[in-house]
Amino acid sequence: VSIRSVEEARRLDAADVLGPFRAEFVIEDEGLIYLDGNSLGRQPRRAAARVKEAVETEWGGRLVRGWNEGWYASPGRLGGKIARLIGAGPDEVVVADSVSVNLFKLVVAALRSAPEGRRTVVTDDLNFPSDLYVLKGAVDLAGDGFRLEVVKSEDGLTVGADVLASAVNGETAVLSLSHVAFKSGFLHDLPAVTADAKAKGALVLWDLSHSVGAVPVDLEAAGADLAVGCTYKYLNGGPGAPAFLYVRRGLQQRLSSPIQGWFGQRDPFDFALEYRPAPGITRFLAGTPPVLSLLAAEAGIDLVLEAGIPRLREKSVRQSKYLVSLWEESLAPLGVTLRSPRDVRLRGSHVSFGHAEGFRISRALIEDANVIPDFRAPDTIRFGITPLYTTFAEIHEGVLRLERVLAERLYERHTKERPRVT
Amino acid sequence: VSIRSVEEARRLDAADVLGPFRAEFVIEDEGLIYLDGNSLGRQPRRAAARVKEAVETEWGGRLVRGWNEGWYASPGRLGGKIARLIGAGPDEVVVADSVSVNLFKLVVAALRSAPEGRRTVVTDDLNFPSDLYVLKGAVDLAGDGFRLEVVKSEDGLTVGADVLASAVNGETAVLSLSHVAFKSGFLHDLPAVTADAKAKGALVLWDLSHSVGAVPVDLEAAGADLAVGCTYKYLNGGPGAPAFLYVRRGLQQRLSSPIQGWFGQRDPFDFALEYRPAPGITRFLAGTPPVLSLLAAEAGIDLVLEAGIPRLREKSVRQSKYLVSLWEESLAPLGVTLRSPRDVRLRGSHVSFGHAEGFRISRALIEDANVIPDFRAPDTIRFGITPLYTTFAEIHEGVLRLERVLAERLYERHTKERPRVT
Repeated sequence: VSIRSVEEARRLDAADVLGPFRAEFVIEDEGLIYLDGNSLGRQPRRAAARVKEAVETEWGGRLVRGWNEGWYASPGRLGGKIARLIGAGPDEVVVADSVSVNLFKLVVAALRSAPEGRRTVVTDDLNFPSDLYVLKGAVDLAGDGFRLEVVKSEDGLTVGADVLASAVNGETAVLSLSHVAFKSGFLHDLPAVTADAKAKGALVLWDLSHSVGAVPVDLEAAGADLAVGCTYKYLNGGPGAPAFLYVRRGLQQRLSSPIQGWFGQRDPFDFALEYRPAPGITRFLAGTPPVLSLLAAEAGIDLVLEAGIPRLREKSVRQSKYLVSLWEESLAPLGVTLRSPRDVRLRGSHVSFGHAEGFRISRALIEDANVIPDFRAPDTIRFGITPLYTTFAEIHEGVLRLERVLAERLYERHTKERPRVT
Repeated sequence: VSIRSVEEARRLDAADVLGPFRAEFVIEDEGLIYLDGNSLGRQPRRAAARVKEAVETEWGGRLVRGWNEGWYASPGRLGGKIARLIGAGPDEVVVADSVSVNLFKLVVAALRSAPEGRRTVVTDDLNFPSDLYVLKGAVDLAGDGFRLEVVKSEDGLTVGADVLASAVNGETAVLSLSHVAFKSGFLHDLPAVTADAKAKGALVLWDLSHSVGAVPVDLEAAGADLAVGCTYKYLNGGPGAPAFLYVRRGLQQRLSSPIQGWFGQRDPFDFALEYRPAPGITRFLAGTPPVLSLLAAEAGIDLVLEAGIPRLREKSVRQSKYLVSLWEESLAPLGVTLRSPRDVRLRGSHVSFGHAEGFRISRALIEDANVIPDFRAPDTIRFGITPLYTTFAEIHEGVLRLERVLAERLYERHTKERPRVT
């Protein structure tokens, strides 16, 4: 059977042990090929039920009593669940704030504890721009000779552990990277990179936004110090759902958050005038968390735990290999390049394609072909694979529709003008 | 008719022009006397409908398209509505993050722009402890001789404009106060305090958490520079609903947020590696906002706009005077003291009472008498008045039940041990 036949896709779906999980998600339009779960995950059915309960029973009925009946505990409870996905202890993770705010808290905390002489934050240019902005803001704020060093990717897709190793030295305070690169999908060798930087005395901070829920992560085994990540991509937590942060147990007492809010205070309801940080991971909380968004996120985390990371990764690998094979047969001849590493071991759970008309092609896919990928300037189209609900048949059909958009030049009637977000 | 008669309460309710607004709120238990809207407001019926739409139609059906179909615009849209409640322009307010995070962003931004020689942040000990923690954290982070000066209240209830004026001088970088004090309900003279500090060259930052939606605020008329506030108290935005921040138009280009997240970036979807702050108030956003909690908050803001601050304040004043009269007749003889200013012009929209057994009394009210006030350590019970839904009959009944708890010493079977929040 040809890889291009729809029968092959159906056969793969029929054999998929994770197949039943698709029914756990709201799928209103079966004709829509949704390949953007790496930006905003689909909605777990249980999330809608959980939000309804939080709104009606808890806020509506229990009112302020809700705080003592579960809301206060939720940043830690959700953190404990995420901990199981990233090789951390339940006392090492909390859910709070956004990735940007959490990254800020952790990197500033790390810089304040940096030994004399360690004055650089090292990152790479594959990192999500918002992370670069936050890191730059943090070194500027810290002053005192702190500076940001951005390692450049030679091929625009990858940065090898050896390249990073040559950038990390006795002056490095913190090495901060995105585990999976947002654009190319490149997957850093987290254990090797962490081991090298730790051996040189630097702290290592991983942004797991594009890996949590899709790729195996074992922070404790790697000895990683700090991490942040989002819950609205592969964890399917809902739009802007609160992020998480991880601080290695042995480091918690040495670090303190620059944002000294009451949720990080020991005994906040004593209303003492002096700040005394809570003893453990709780000290990295700041203000009152957005409860509805927080509780909505729990359902998606539970589903990932039920499916299990090994099975999810196994399916993701098979699906992304399948997608790359289809690209080679159908899309490469039409001028589409592969903008992700060819080796699946170096990829997270999305595959990126390049085309000079990438923006207009993505508009045509969305508006004319009922396919939702996403576009990353200047010319990259990402196909995200969420093994909890993405089927082989969807990938097959998504490629077919892209082929048609290209072959019939359907993109030409779309504007080149990208809308501004205001 | 005696002030103590229930007929008087009913007469006042019957004549209340805001009476119909009560039907806009979810009230599951008509026997519950809810006097804690100053901690967590009741749920607007429209909020439940709005969340349902956001979950089902938007996240569930539109998926990632939701961002361009309203989610991106929501921090500014809600900010524009709150602006009308606080005397600001629609381009001066955004909704984002928590009060603690927003306070941090603004005070650090202010300190970084402080002229040589201005090295103090002045506040008072009536301020919410979390604000004191954040301010202390900010001056410690800024280093360079910055320090926090906490003006002490002489009576524990108030701090006069004259006392503040004597603390603010040519060394003051920022004066940061809570407009209404969380414990006593004391209402600062915002125009006078702002005018004095501005004349001395300091920046003035108000926390409006306990005044927005209940007390008239005119930031532009006062010339106030900066403000933050929460949406889950008198704005009835839902548990932990995102906070807001205000930066005076003329100051926006001079200040920049220390938390340089992509939502504050000019053209974030260019994914440029360099941070360029957005031109206006948007630069004070940081990471991705929690959409469900954000959209839930809009309904309550709309209701406050419909009722109008002048009518809300007028009713709040009458209700708090009524409550103080009842206290004087019924509660003072039982050993309850008034822990709010006697003069209604010096109070926000809650009234505080003192009793050595305050904690056990509050437990008895909640568990035995179906009254929810709140307790603030060590001995203060707060009765919050939310004129959108609080009735005179509720206040009357709440006092009657408290009288009974005291007279029959119902509190004695409750533990003195306050639970820890963990």
